[in-house]
Amino acid sequence: MVETLGGAESIAPFFSPRSVAIIGASSKQKKIGYVIAKNFIESFAGKLFLINPSAQQILSHKCYPNISSIPESVDLAVIAVPAKSVKEVLEECGEKGVRTAVVISSGFKESGKDGAKMEEELVSVSRKYHIRMMGPNCMGVFNSTTMVDTLFIPRYRLKRPPQGKIAFISQSGASGIAFLDWAAGERIGISKFASYGNAADVDEADLLEFLATDEETKVIAMYLEGIKEGRKFAKIAREVTKEKPVIVLKTGVTDSGAKAALSHTGSLSGTDEIFNAVVKQTGMIRVYDWEEMFDIARALAYQPAARDNRVAVITNGGGAGVMIADELEKHGMALARFSEETTSKLKEKFPPHVTLSNPMDLGGDADNERFREAIGAVIDDDSVDSLILTCIPHTPAIDLESFVDMVVDTKGKNNKPMIVCLPGGRVSLEVRELFEENGIPTYPTPARAALALSALVRYGRLKNGS
Amino acid sequence: MVETLGGAESIAPFFSPRSVAIIGASSKQKKIGYVIAKNFIESFAGKLFLINPSAQQILSHKCYPNISSIPESVDLAVIAVPAKSVKEVLEECGEKGVRTAVVISSGFKESGKDGAKMEEELVSVSRKYHIRMMGPNCMGVFNSTTMVDTLFIPRYRLKRPPQGKIAFISQSGASGIAFLDWAAGERIGISKFASYGNAADVDEADLLEFLATDEETKVIAMYLEGIKEGRKFAKIAREVTKEKPVIVLKTGVTDSGAKAALSHTGSLSGTDEIFNAVVKQTGMIRVYDWEEMFDIARALAYQPAARDNRVAVITNGGGAGVMIADELEKHGMALARFSEETTSKLKEKFPPHVTLSNPMDLGGDADNERFREAIGAVIDDDSVDSLILTCIPHTPAIDLESFVDMVVDTKGKNNKPMIVCLPGGRVSLEVRELFEENGIPTYPTPARAALALSALVRYGRLKNGS
Repeated sequence: MVETLGGAESIAPFFSPRSVAIIGASSKQKKIGYVIAKNFIESFAGKLFLINPSAQQILSHKCYPNISSIPESVDLAVIAVPAKSVKEVLEECGEKGVRTAVVISSGFKESGKDGAKMEEELVSVSRKYHIRMMGPNCMGVFNSTTMVDTLFIPRYRLKRPPQGKIAFISQSGASGIAFLDWAAGERIGISKFASYGNAADVDEADLLEFLATDEETKVIAMYLEGIKEGRKFAKIAREVTKEKPVIVLKTGVTDSGAKAALSHTGSLSGTDEIFNAVVKQTGMIRVYDWEEMFDIARALAYQPAARDNRVAVITNGGGAGVMIADELEKHGMALARFSEETTSKLKEKFPPHVTLSNPMDLGGDADNERFREAIGAVIDDDSVDSLILTCIPHTPAIDLESFVDMVVDTKGKNNKPMIVCLPGGRVSLEVRELFEENGIPTYPTPARAALALSALVRYGRLKNGS
Repeated sequence: MVETLGGAESIAPFFSPRSVAIIGASSKQKKIGYVIAKNFIESFAGKLFLINPSAQQILSHKCYPNISSIPESVDLAVIAVPAKSVKEVLEECGEKGVRTAVVISSGFKESGKDGAKMEEELVSVSRKYHIRMMGPNCMGVFNSTTMVDTLFIPRYRLKRPPQGKIAFISQSGASGIAFLDWAAGERIGISKFASYGNAADVDEADLLEFLATDEETKVIAMYLEGIKEGRKFAKIAREVTKEKPVIVLKTGVTDSGAKAALSHTGSLSGTDEIFNAVVKQTGMIRVYDWEEMFDIARALAYQPAARDNRVAVITNGGGAGVMIADELEKHGMALARFSEETTSKLKEKFPPHVTLSNPMDLGGDADNERFREAIGAVIDDDSVDSLILTCIPHTPAIDLESFVDMVVDTKGKNNKPMIVCLPGGRVSLEVRELFEENGIPTYPTPARAALALSALVRYGRLKNGS
């Protein structure tokens, strides 16, 4: 036995195998084994072996009758055969020396007593051969870099998201699909994704531990209905949050939700108080909604943590400044009090109707240059830990394209996070995308902008030990 | 004097004049008087008169030197001349018999003591001639039906939203722009819009009173930083909410926000407790965010109010059902307990893995027909007051186009509101738009869906007097 059963290194081959065998590959378009084979043929750069005893070729690729007949070593087996055959197939994998397997097949614990017994047998086999097994009854893995893609929803029905810095793990397959669709639609980059189903072996804690070591992942987001082993999870989560932020969306919060969770995955979701205690103790960031999760994840993926909670707000529309001030206070942040130096420097340059207190309202006639001066002064002000920029981009004075360039030029200065709040619709949406492409997280409402910034403040405090 | 100074009928000509004079029309592209003239020339169907003493023609339209020289009567004057000339122009309007005027010009109360004095003079003139005056210092009016459009942001910078049932009023111009941009971007239909600036004469209460009588408006949404006359506003709001729902976004909520509001429009935003008491007493629905405002407005515009708070949740992805159950409870709603008849009827038809309790999880293999059966049974169940439908639309079993048709067919049955929650991105976005076009409000997250439904429940209770 060269490989250990636990630890991050045992999880790595799920995401970055040099060679993959798809057991149950099929030439029938409606079959799971067809969709998965097609995914790998289209984009996986490593070695690929298709296995189906009754086919010579699938999608113009040579087929092997079984895993033993493959002449080379296999890092990852993807198993998509009927439930009753999985045990035998997994044993063959073990004999062949495969140490990593995703079992897509369903018909195990989730389907009742007989299935639960079959699942126990799989666990025995994987223990015997030191195989790390994901599933059964799962969507499996997506890695935007290596293009490991075991998702059995065809790409024309579910677009895959682009490369990025956010990893996502979810026990629930449907929630995993919703996440990926959202990320693809909003063009939010993903590093790695796993939906691990019944968690007979690999669970949320294992994946968390691995993702902490993954250089492509800057933020980890998770969807949980329940936790398999609370103590193990809490221990690992506490370590991981020292390395990178962990965002957790936990459902089954209320009595109604807990009952619904029980009938969905059989998860005992536990009381919300207990979970909140775990969140606090481990330094995770809890969210209640997909939108919150993405909003926070984008901020943490692309901006530094904030040193402290003093925020500068710069705007050309007073109303937005007022709304942001409200939201900052709700989230425990404070309006920075600008230094004498900052205000006197800007007073010289700006017309008298500009409000130099915080929120700094540059006026409806503010042009790019006035914004540039204001951002430059404020970002150098020691009393400021972070910036929210909010701009009504429709005023004739603003030149949109160079406005984005101007803001991007200041990115990362003094290591202070900056986020943008652009209210509304069509014009704003285009500008938002330009900002996002340049690593400036951008939100359509003051509430969402403030929530995202609050995560940078909270994570900053965790890192500082305060 | 044929017209009264107050009342809804004195406000109507702002939105539906037969003839309009634009005083200060300009042929210079950067000028406000150019943008406004162009708007009217492009789309206003009534009579249009451009006024500029030093031009013969503007945009190929005849120019008059002053309002007295116009040979016909004028219902609405749009005034966009320098502040110092407004008084004289307004007097000429009065002499001519114009009873409705929008004063776009700025340089009045908002600019200091001298401006405040000039504004008082405008008020005197409008009282003397019984003119209803909107502004000064305002964006004015947009009506998607008559295409009155005094907004001085060119249409290529700010798309105008389509026709619809939501009216919006805002003192702040920037917030007004943000709203319109959002509505246009999300293709949310608007009936009428007004941004009334300094509110020297026409204020939020006048507009509210008028919109209550407006047949094209089903929901009224407002953005407030402060209220001009609290007692008048509360009295009118209480009456209006009996006719149609009123949604209010009030800022300056926290100490920080209140200070920011003071420096923005000089509004004393009052304490949040007082405002909440007004909200409760008047039956308005308070929101804290643009997104909440739109989410609730769409539901109220296109779905009936709910009889009571018992909700049926139908899904093909258990996780979404769990999240919705959580959110419903947070918003004071309850999961309906289906009748024996409903569950036994469905039990016969559905495979055993379908969960017939509430949330009803039809399974990942649920096709359109299974959804149709479930919706049909539940909508006829007396224990159900409203439905939330949530569907992962990527599963192979769902045929998307006919799925939308199938849901739309059940719309309005038994007068029970139905809203849809579709998580995520690209595929979902297309389906969401199809639903919206057919009057089924659709939300990307359980939280937003539950909030929207809660407004239908609250408004139902207000109407029932419970």
